[in-house]
Parts: sequence; C-alpha cells; structure tokens
Amino acid sequence: MSGIDNYSRRDWVAEVGSQSAMPILRMTERLEAFRENFGANLQFQRGNITDYDTVANMLRHHQPDAIVHLAEMPSAPYSMIDAQHAVYTHQNNLMGTLNLLFAMRDITPDAHLLKLGTMGEYGTPNVDIPEGFFEIEFRGRKDTLPFPRQPGSFYHLTKVHDSANIMFACRMWGLRSTDIMQGVVFGTRIDAMGDDERLVTRLDFDQAFGTAINRFCAQAAIGLPITPYGKGAQTRGFLPLRDSIQCFTLALETPPEEGEYRVFNQFEETYVISELAEMVREVADRLGLNPEVRHLENPRKEMEEHYFNPDHSKLLELGYEPTHDIKTEIEAVLKDLIKNKSRIEARSESLLPDIRWDGTRRKSDYR
Amino acid sequence: MSGIDNYSRRDWVAEVGSQSAMPILRMTERLEAFRENFGANLQFQRGNITDYDTVANMLRHHQPDAIVHLAEMPSAPYSMIDAQHAVYTHQNNLMGTLNLLFAMRDITPDAHLLKLGTMGEYGTPNVDIPEGFFEIEFRGRKDTLPFPRQPGSFYHLTKVHDSANIMFACRMWGLRSTDIMQGVVFGTRIDAMGDDERLVTRLDFDQAFGTAINRFCAQAAIGLPITPYGKGAQTRGFLPLRDSIQCFTLALETPPEEGEYRVFNQFEETYVISELAEMVREVADRLGLNPEVRHLENPRKEMEEHYFNPDHSKLLELGYEPTHDIKTEIEAVLKDLIKNKSRIEARSESLLPDIRWDGTRRKSDYR
Repeated sequence: MSGIDNYSRRDWVAEVGSQSAMPILRMTERLEAFRENFGANLQFQRGNITDYDTVANMLRHHQPDAIVHLAEMPSAPYSMIDAQHAVYTHQNNLMGTLNLLFAMRDITPDAHLLKLGTMGEYGTPNVDIPEGFFEIEFRGRKDTLPFPRQPGSFYHLTKVHDSANIMFACRMWGLRSTDIMQGVVFGTRIDAMGDDERLVTRLDFDQAFGTAINRFCAQAAIGLPITPYGKGAQTRGFLPLRDSIQCFTLALETPPEEGEYRVFNQFEETYVISELAEMVREVADRLGLNPEVRHLENPRKEMEEHYFNPDHSKLLELGYEPTHDIKTEIEAVLKDLIKNKSRIEARSESLLPDIRWDGTRRKSDYR
Repeated sequence: MSGIDNYSRRDWVAEVGSQSAMPILRMTERLEAFRENFGANLQFQRGNITDYDTVANMLRHHQPDAIVHLAEMPSAPYSMIDAQHAVYTHQNNLMGTLNLLFAMRDITPDAHLLKLGTMGEYGTPNVDIPEGFFEIEFRGRKDTLPFPRQPGSFYHLTKVHDSANIMFACRMWGLRSTDIMQGVVFGTRIDAMGDDERLVTRLDFDQAFGTAINRFCAQAAIGLPITPYGKGAQTRGFLPLRDSIQCFTLALETPPEEGEYRVFNQFEETYVISELAEMVREVADRLGLNPEVRHLENPRKEMEEHYFNPDHSKLLELGYEPTHDIKTEIEAVLKDLIKNKSRIEARSESLLPDIRWDGTRRKSDYR
C-alpha cells in the first residue's frame, strides 16, 4: 500500500486566507501512527501526478491492484476566481487523470481505478438522475446513453470532463473504473481512527474549500451566524466522512469487470440546505452555542429551488450501511471544532464568501 | 477585421512527417492578396491564445462583434499518439477556449463566439442525433437536456469539453455562442478566392491531419490505392470547404441572443465511407488515374457498421444552400492535387496510418 501527494491543498487553502480547523501532523508522524494502529507500513512519496513519469514510475514500482484517485482540486469557488484559476483547475485535474489512464494502459491494465467524481456533475435537471447511464427512447428508437451533465462551476466541469475521459479509456483499452458521484461530505472522523488523534484529517471551513455542514459547524463553534446562500432551498446529497470511506472500501472489494466503467451515486440522503442549517443550530444549541441562522446573498449563480431526485441504490446493493443519525455526526464535528476554536477564529474572515460567479470579488451581504 | 495564429499546424504536420499538398504563401503575401481582392486590410498578429494576456489584449484592441475560433488542434490520431499528445491536445484546446470565454466576459460580453466543434462529439448512438439538445421524458417527467456525447478520440473529447465549458459560460455570464458541429470537410477552394492562387489554403493528406476525401484524392493523384479503414461502412456527415465557409457566414449574420448557446449540425449529407472511396475512384478514372480501392486494417477502434441519422435543419433554415454535386467538388480537388503531385509523393509515407488507438505504432496492412 502506498500513497502520493504533493500537498497542494494546503497551498490553495492558504491562498484563500485560511487553514485547516483541525491541526494535522507531519506526514512522517502520521505514517508512524498508521503503522502503530494497523501494523502495516504505508509507503509514501511526495510527488505530482500531472508529471507523467512520476505516475508511470509509481505504477511500475508498486504494481497496484487498485488506484484511489483523490488528487483533484476540489473547490467550485476556487475554480471560478478568474481565467488563471479555471485554467489551473483544468490542468491539474485533467492532466493527472490522463496520465493515470495512459500509465494504467501500459503498465497495470488490470488495476481498478476508483475515481472521485461529484453529484454536482449532474446539476439539477427536472427529471430523476440515474447512476451514470439511462435507457432512453427517442423518436421511436432506443439506446442506453450517458446521462447528460449540467455542472455548475468550472471545477464541476473538470469532473465531467474526467468522467468522459475515463469512460472513453475503459471503452478503448479495457480498463476498469468506478466513478463515484459523491455527495457533499462532512465530518472529522472515520471508525478506523479510533481515539488516535494523530490520524486526524484536515477540515476546511473557508468559503472555497469548506463544504456546507463543515462551514456551518465552524460558524456555530465560534459564535457566528450560520449562513445558507440565497433561499437555502437548494437540495443536495450529503454523507458523513465515515460513510464515504465505507463506500470506497465496498467499491474496492468488488471491482468492475474488464472494460467496465461504472458510476455510483454516493450519498446517505438528500437534504435541503436550510434544513441542515437548522439541524446544526439545534445541535449547537444543545452544546450551549446558540447560533443564529442568517441567509446570505448567494455568491453563486444556481437554482435555489428545484427538483432533485437522484438514484443511489448501487452502493446499498453492495452492502453500504448509511449513517442515518446526522445529528450525532454533527455533534462530533462541533465538539472537534470547539476544541480548535482559536484556529477558526484566526481565519474567520475566510468563512464569508466574496468569490462570485460573475467574476467580481465582493463579500456577500446578509439578505 | 483581424486574425491571430501561431502557425502550430505546420509544426504538427511536420511532426507526423508531412506537409500541405498545396503550397501556401507567407502571411504577408496572403494579406497583400486579400487587400487586392477585397479592398480591405486584414490585420494579423502572430500569437498564441493559450496565453490569457494575448487574448485579452486582442479583444481590448479590436473590440470585435464576432470571434471565429478555429484555433484548436484538430486531429484525432495526433491526440491518440501517447499521454503527452493527449495532454497537449487538452491544454491547447481547452486553455484557448477558456481564455477566450473569460476575456469575452470582461471585455466584449456582447460579442458572438463562433466555435468550431465536430459531428464526432456525438459518436454513433443508436438513436437520431438532434442539434445539441433534446426534449426527453424520463420516468414520467420532462426536461430539455444536452444530448449525450460519445466521442471517439481524445481530440473529440476536448471538443466535447469545450462545448460544455462554452454552454456554461453562456448560462452564467450571458455570453452568446454558436457551436458548430461540423462534418468532415474536404476541398481546396471557396467561391471568394476566385482565380487568385495566392489565396489558396492548405490541404493536408497525412494520416493525422488529412480528412477522408482529401486523403483519397491525394492517393488517387499519385497512383496509390484509395484506402478506407476496416469495412468502410462507417457513416459520417461531409461537406465541401465552400459550404463550411458559407455556413459560418450565415451564422455570423444572424447572431444568437444574449445568453444563448446554440448548436448547429453542419454538413451537406451523410455518406458511407466506402461509397465515397468509389466516388473518388470514379472521378479519378475520368481523369485517367485509374486507382484501386483497397481496404486497410482499421487503426482506430470504432463501430464499422452503425445507425447514423443526425438532424441538420437549422443552417438550412438560415438559408444554407448545400453543394449537392460532390463529384464536381472531388474533381476540383483532384486537379489541384495533380498539379502538386510531387509534394504528395515526397511525403507519401504519411498517407498510410500507423497511429493506432491501442497505443502501438504499426503500419496498417491491407485487409
């Protein structure tokens, strides 16, 4: 088992004026903690997969059965800052994936590529969202086709492009891949961590890299209002970090066939954003935090009320047991964040959005 | 009126061991010929649109009403050579288009972006192909969605990615764009050229940059067999160069509304490849060339027999008058190529494909 990372996420987060709420240790210490907890050496190299030779050497050296690709720039706002950031997001995300596909073809053609996509690839169509493909009848003829994507940012577009590139590589070269359309992840912990705080992972709360529930919890933890964007009637699929990891494990245990490109929609349940904000407020109240919920002018251009009914049965069929108790999960996040209050306070400016979809930079007002 | 080019096509063609069959003059001489024929100065700058400042300065200086974007690497085989070529194709095509979209938003938001796509974005689905969008009913609900794309090479994938990026920019920023899904173009001449040979454009005949009819004509012109790939029952939309330019003109004369992203399927008619090969043979016979038709092992992975019925009514509604007399067009190409026989003979090796979709390099055998 081995990993590769170029640590660029901490640079991106620093660029938008923030830091992880949870302090994370140096890689050497985390690897040591991993060894102590799991009795196995995790090999690690610092490297950038947008360099083809780095990828090819890694595959040649480790001959992996499975590759979990999480090396993409994951922020919609960051990708919308300006032309340079949109271009960078395309370069980082597409080049890394293309290098992996070519290196897999030539070095480990039987390996399983588990690639992280996003539910945001689909956008919010006025029809049900299947898992990747749908059978249609059009003018009396039938075919099974990729479901049309209507992503809402350049970041989401790069995910769509990657999905198309991977689908093509599976069809052309017989590669096998699982493309996970992941909902919005929140949370600080997974079961395997136990109580070893050295294994803790980062939690971003800034406008660009913080996801909705994590941001709401960070706001509640330091006594700021919880701020849904716009009407707050946007609906999305959500899942706790522990479910995300559980699903990856299930997908890896049952790899696709040769040439198979399969798509899993991965989320516990869909929630309306303002309902989640209320849920965070309720749990925070119990912890004596008493935050307000105040809606902000939406910095994004998106539908604020819409139909949203995505399928999500494939992972359940593989044995996914969702964490339905979202409030317990939110409580755990709040407790972790309260412990790190000063780290959030030091970067509290980064919580309120100023990256706007129209290209201007201006802090959103309360509605 | 002004143009920008970085002349990279001649480098790509040289890289695959070939050259244009038609000799083309230096830009200064072509601009002089343009001035003499049309009484107007065409401003020109050498530059690369993958550099944002180049694009922004150009828009600021010229304040265009319309931008015709033909600056993409257009070869499927070239994009399939290896990881580096796939990555390069993505960088060149996507960065140029992204830079244009951002510069348009900030400098000339009312300009009309006419972007060249390809019919190859759609692939060969088992249903009719609409012009970009289709109304579907899925599980009892209806929506109008982008028609799913199933492109057949990394080049075609970059075109799909660009289409998605442009659609997004129109939706977000109110830009207006016509995305032309162009069929396979052939031919050497357009009406406006008249008899001025100085205005002639390049004609590529190599395996990577030569399109089917142009390649067949080049083979016939130097006494080589005409070589469809595989069964030759692949069906594609084709159109002569003069029709392509006529359609661009029509699209520019009737720009889209603010925020409108419209898709035109642009071709005269669909043809089966082996029928086109027979047509070239027949016309070549009349000119005393007597070429054989010999099928080659297909270097691509593609369906060789399939349903193909794309709509193409929008340009006809704008007044497009197709050149139905394909044989006269083929005859004109053959005559131009016979004049330049020695230029084709000098690079005849480049006519037979060795870039294979499985990543190997081996000249195709006759079937």
